[in-house]
Amino acid sequence: MERRNAFYAQSGGVTAVINASACGVIQAARENATVIENVIAGRNGIIGALTEDLIDTSLESDAAIAGLRHTPSGAFGSCRYKLKSVAENLAEYERLLAVFEAHNIGYFFYNGGGDSQDTTAKIAQLSAQRGYPLQCIGIPKTVDNDLPITDNCPGFGSVAKYVAVSIREAGYDVAAMAKTSTKVFVMEVMGRHAGWIAAAGGLAQDRPGAAPHLILFPEITFDEAGFVARVNECVTQYGYCAIVVSEGLRYADGKFVADAGIRDAFGHAQLGGVAPIIAQLLKQRLGLKYHWAVADYLQRAARHIASKTDVEQAYALGRAAVEMALAGKSAVMPTIDRICDDPYEWRIGEARLEDVANVEKLMPREFITADGYGITDSCRQYLSPLIAGEDYPPYRDGLPDYVRLKNTPLGKRISTEFELS
Amino acid sequence: MERRNAFYAQSGGVTAVINASACGVIQAARENATVIENVIAGRNGIIGALTEDLIDTSLESDAAIAGLRHTPSGAFGSCRYKLKSVAENLAEYERLLAVFEAHNIGYFFYNGGGDSQDTTAKIAQLSAQRGYPLQCIGIPKTVDNDLPITDNCPGFGSVAKYVAVSIREAGYDVAAMAKTSTKVFVMEVMGRHAGWIAAAGGLAQDRPGAAPHLILFPEITFDEAGFVARVNECVTQYGYCAIVVSEGLRYADGKFVADAGIRDAFGHAQLGGVAPIIAQLLKQRLGLKYHWAVADYLQRAARHIASKTDVEQAYALGRAAVEMALAGKSAVMPTIDRICDDPYEWRIGEARLEDVANVEKLMPREFITADGYGITDSCRQYLSPLIAGEDYPPYRDGLPDYVRLKNTPLGKRISTEFELS
Repeated sequence: MERRNAFYAQSGGVTAVINASACGVIQAARENATVIENVIAGRNGIIGALTEDLIDTSLESDAAIAGLRHTPSGAFGSCRYKLKSVAENLAEYERLLAVFEAHNIGYFFYNGGGDSQDTTAKIAQLSAQRGYPLQCIGIPKTVDNDLPITDNCPGFGSVAKYVAVSIREAGYDVAAMAKTSTKVFVMEVMGRHAGWIAAAGGLAQDRPGAAPHLILFPEITFDEAGFVARVNECVTQYGYCAIVVSEGLRYADGKFVADAGIRDAFGHAQLGGVAPIIAQLLKQRLGLKYHWAVADYLQRAARHIASKTDVEQAYALGRAAVEMALAGKSAVMPTIDRICDDPYEWRIGEARLEDVANVEKLMPREFITADGYGITDSCRQYLSPLIAGEDYPPYRDGLPDYVRLKNTPLGKRISTEFELS
Repeated sequence: MERRNAFYAQSGGVTAVINASACGVIQAARENATVIENVIAGRNGIIGALTEDLIDTSLESDAAIAGLRHTPSGAFGSCRYKLKSVAENLAEYERLLAVFEAHNIGYFFYNGGGDSQDTTAKIAQLSAQRGYPLQCIGIPKTVDNDLPITDNCPGFGSVAKYVAVSIREAGYDVAAMAKTSTKVFVMEVMGRHAGWIAAAGGLAQDRPGAAPHLILFPEITFDEAGFVARVNECVTQYGYCAIVVSEGLRYADGKFVADAGIRDAFGHAQLGGVAPIIAQLLKQRLGLKYHWAVADYLQRAARHIASKTDVEQAYALGRAAVEMALAGKSAVMPTIDRICDDPYEWRIGEARLEDVANVEKLMPREFITADGYGITDSCRQYLSPLIAGEDYPPYRDGLPDYVRLKNTPLGKRISTEFELS
């Protein structure tokens, strides 16, 4: 059998563990070198394929590839670039197939969220139509945790752990300061459409009265008066109030609080995130001294406190993608199947890309308490295993020793340039 | 010899390791139970002494006390409450001595920054004048790292490590996204008067072009045009720019950028920290897509990524304070003496409180590069050992297993109430 190359690309927002999936793909490919000649990576995701900006991973040492398992972010670069439909932009798909053919690529691995799975499905379909033999496997990744079928999405568990650890630590801090100083702490977390990440903060509450006292979810319309009353109650009862707020918090009219929150007398929007707006609101209404934090990229890049479960799953999904390709499969995505909550058991499953693409898994309403400010036992049962275990990176000189690949370009084989749409 | 009690209180902003000092104090006291009967803690710092709101630490198990070593924040509560001078408010000092006498307190341990050392010195002086036998020992603590004589201040090394780790991780993230998305990342850190914490971010830059590319120090007047030009150069050269900004950044007129930064057309101050202001500035001037983070309390509470050096020093200083008291000393503070940079060696030294009080150790200008945007080799040499080593807390259910003490109140022995000034 003729050896063929594999193409691997990272897509969308990067995570603490997407490189662990890359590690799984490349290590599994190297173990099957009689079938897969080389893994060619796209520089900056699918843009690398479209512009024939390819990376020769064979020039990376085994040690460097192993180091990807503990290195956050996307080692080959990622991109926010959504391919249009085949009908709208056939040229892009034809270009991809031309680049793949020029580099003898027989395996396409695309590591991303819902849009990426959709793209992978379309490429599988088109290559089949054109008679170009290409096995297309999606690899799930998104801190948003919104892909269907799979138990959870790699990247989410580590953000969840970071958020829960951080609000627990900040909660301890505020509790000590509240007598004479800060009484309200507001921490803003990611999740514009779904409250999975905000919900994870709730795991820190290990007893009544512990932080976080209130969670503001994007799924629950922001009730300013009700919220202020709850904060007041909390401060009266416990002396302080620690709050997790999702960046996606909205008013009843659908506007983001971050965009449409407190404005000055002339209607000018305020600068920045939702945390300072919530903090300022509490200062105005209750006269409480506040502090606020916006974790932003720190939360999704925090490989130093990654979930061991998340790292193991991300790595296993990378390996599984290669194994599926070697088994002759295409247009599929490996998934995490949950066998048992406690003790948590999981195995690799398989989903058809057509069942994954364009389906968003929202947080069930029953995961949020009736009052809208906390998580339920069923939510806790779902989330807890995902943050279990620590998987510390190696350190050098007091800092995580993350790898940086050489990312040597592969020679071009196509003379035409390609203009990105 | 009659056994006497010790009083211990935490003061000012709490840290990831102030409880490690408390652990050192209480463990050393328990080992010397023939001399020290009990350690009585002030609830919420010195306020606990003034109001006779005291905690009986003898009711805490050895395991709980040992757990303080890995627990962030102030286990007994802290406060922001500065005693006035003896001349201004003699009543406060007399009240303290009355409470101490009522509880047979012969040892006073005060764990805090410059103000606390000053207070300790005054109490030592007054108790000597009044003939009340009280040995007063200060224990250094401050993330600001601004106490003189001691090599560094417990709490700082762990914030430094958190900041360096975080900007390295975020730098990796932005590098992967910059092709099609975020090109500028701004992380705000603490340090209203001195740039020690901002400088620590510079440790993450392990090669030219690595994050952070620019640091904005409170010591260096903010030059808007020069800064914008540097960011532009950086993005041109590396594709992105990661920036650490101190909350204390100021304009030439002395105003904080956070307070006096970009205002709207009507002169209304913007809400929030300095990071969003810097980010917005770069958007306006260079049209770059940005993200920003404000770590706030997350940085000083981050026991999960504490510096091992910092934990060991904080603990050793707590023990040393007790040993100094047992040796008959008073009006002193144990210090960290640096013997060697590389390999880092340190031992416990001793400073007189009168030499510590009201002296602020600023960052030397030669620690900042000539252009004002980076740290020098001598700065790196000073800072590097302070973030060395990891000292992970134990975990349970995926989260750090921090202790919560019982903090049982000790019965009151004084019938009069005391009104705080």
